Amino acid sequence: PVKKNGMVSLDEVRAAITDHTVLISVMHDNNETGVIQHLEGIAEIVRERRTRGQQALHLHTDAVQSVGKVAVDVKRLGGDLLSLSGHKLHGPKDVDALFNRKVVRLAKQMTGGHHERDRRAGTENVPGVVGLGRAAGLARLHFAERTERMRELRDYFEQQVMRRIANVRVNGEIERRVPNIANLSFADVDGESLLIALDLQGIAVSTGSACASGSLEPSHVLTAMQLTREQVRGSLRISLSALTTREEMDGALAALEETVARLREMRPTDEAATRMESRL
Amino acid sequence: PVKKNGMVSLDEVRAAITDHTVLISVMHDNNETGVIQHLEGIAEIVRERRTRGQQALHLHTDAVQSVGKVAVDVKRLGGDLLSLSGHKLHGPKDVDALFNRKVVRLAKQMTGGHHERDRRAGTENVPGVVGLGRAAGLARLHFAERTERMRELRDYFEQQVMRRIANVRVNGEIERRVPNIANLSFADVDGESLLIALDLQGIAVSTGSACASGSLEPSHVLTAMQLTREQVRGSLRISLSALTTREEMDGALAALEETVARLREMRPTDEAATRMESRL
Repeated sequence: PVKKNGMVSLDEVRAAITDHTVLISVMHDNNETGVIQHLEGIAEIVRERRTRGQQALHLHTDAVQSVGKVAVDVKRLGGDLLSLSGHKLHGPKDVDALFNRKVVRLAKQMTGGHHERDRRAGTENVPGVVGLGRAAGLARLHFAERTERMRELRDYFEQQVMRRIANVRVNGEIERRVPNIANLSFADVDGESLLIALDLQGIAVSTGSACASGSLEPSHVLTAMQLTREQVRGSLRISLSALTTREEMDGALAALEETVARLREMRPTDEAATRMESRL
Repeated sequence: PVKKNGMVSLDEVRAAITDHTVLISVMHDNNETGVIQHLEGIAEIVRERRTRGQQALHLHTDAVQSVGKVAVDVKRLGGDLLSLSGHKLHGPKDVDALFNRKVVRLAKQMTGGHHERDRRAGTENVPGVVGLGRAAGLARLHFAERTERMRELRDYFEQQVMRRIANVRVNGEIERRVPNIANLSFADVDGESLLIALDLQGIAVSTGSACASGSLEPSHVLTAMQLTREQVRGSLRISLSALTTREEMDGALAALEETVARLREMRPTDEAATRMESRL
């Protein structure tokens, strides 16, 4: 479970560990809300347990959304394993990295050949690896300017949404977020309809929900944060990159304002909605 | 086991199948020798067993070395699954394809997300997939001209080697080989030394052996073909592509001729070699 602000409670982590626990895996920041977990605190709990003899306990974090967006220092964070992904850094797709503090022996991910120190069979993707390295280097070089730019633009976007559209809430702990994600809930709007309408206007956003084989499953992330069903259904994730421009965000704002207004007008009465749902 | 010419015997395949066999996996052509197996024959055996009720029996082939080098028609070959690899087609690295005749239900290769029809989690590498498709299209478009070019150059190379260097044998069934591989055994030469000497001259070849953590393991492929230990040790795989030029092959020939002569001169007497070996 998480708290209402999307943060994993350290007490909950402490309580969840048994003498047989070997791995704790917590996202460094959540992909839907951008909320950054208190990983240092979790690492401290792991250290305590290790000091008391539980050597087999390890901590992994998924920092795919973090690297290039917030400072990620494996020493400071203190986990054993950290994943990151090339395409989230403007690097090539399908090239990822797993930092291993060398305390964890890893099973082979792919068997067959002895490539990549016997961990992943198959001809090594050297161009991809070089590309990931270069992208990481550039992310580091331009870190301050890129993150500041994204934060300014995201905050501007959120402020404008709040000013121009009624009944919107920002989901997730505002003080601990990556600078490029806004997760918003629009009252009296179906997020999926909003997504489709925006997509038709060339604006790519995502709902909290994962749409699998036609059935809409509500976001488990927002549900765990105890949002109401209506709030989850009206949610939208808007993310940007260091390449996103103010003009693009202004265009998205205008489209969003107009589309939310239209969808709210078209909205069936509560009674009709209940009738439709009971038929599904 | 294989026959002396590197071909899998159909009788051996037939004899190896039990009532519990679910998968036969045979390379379409061998990566060390280039020898093309009689896959249609094996597919026929599988069909017979299926007709007699063994529906669970399936045939997979690794056509990584074949596609673009020989005609690969999944209908004619008749297997259920066929693997191919992008970088063997001048396509991108780390992008491969598995043809599935839809009779085989596949377990997930990577778990976690629902990408690629729930078979391989992770953001899909669209540029890579497009690249593989394009490379395959070009391989098909230029098939006749590329394969003819490779075959002429490979045959020229082998003829020249035979003419200029004494005591060389070609390994593998000459009549059934991909057009771009020559696997040769040089008497009284250590293939690994030859490889290193050629590498220093900018010529990349491989030995039949896989060199793992410093210890030389003799090629299991050539060993299975009943080559003598000395023949296996003196083996070298030379492969070329449609981009290889006559000038490059002439350069390689000159280097090979000179290097084999030098290594044969430097060769320790049999007695000294035996002494050295007993020390290892």
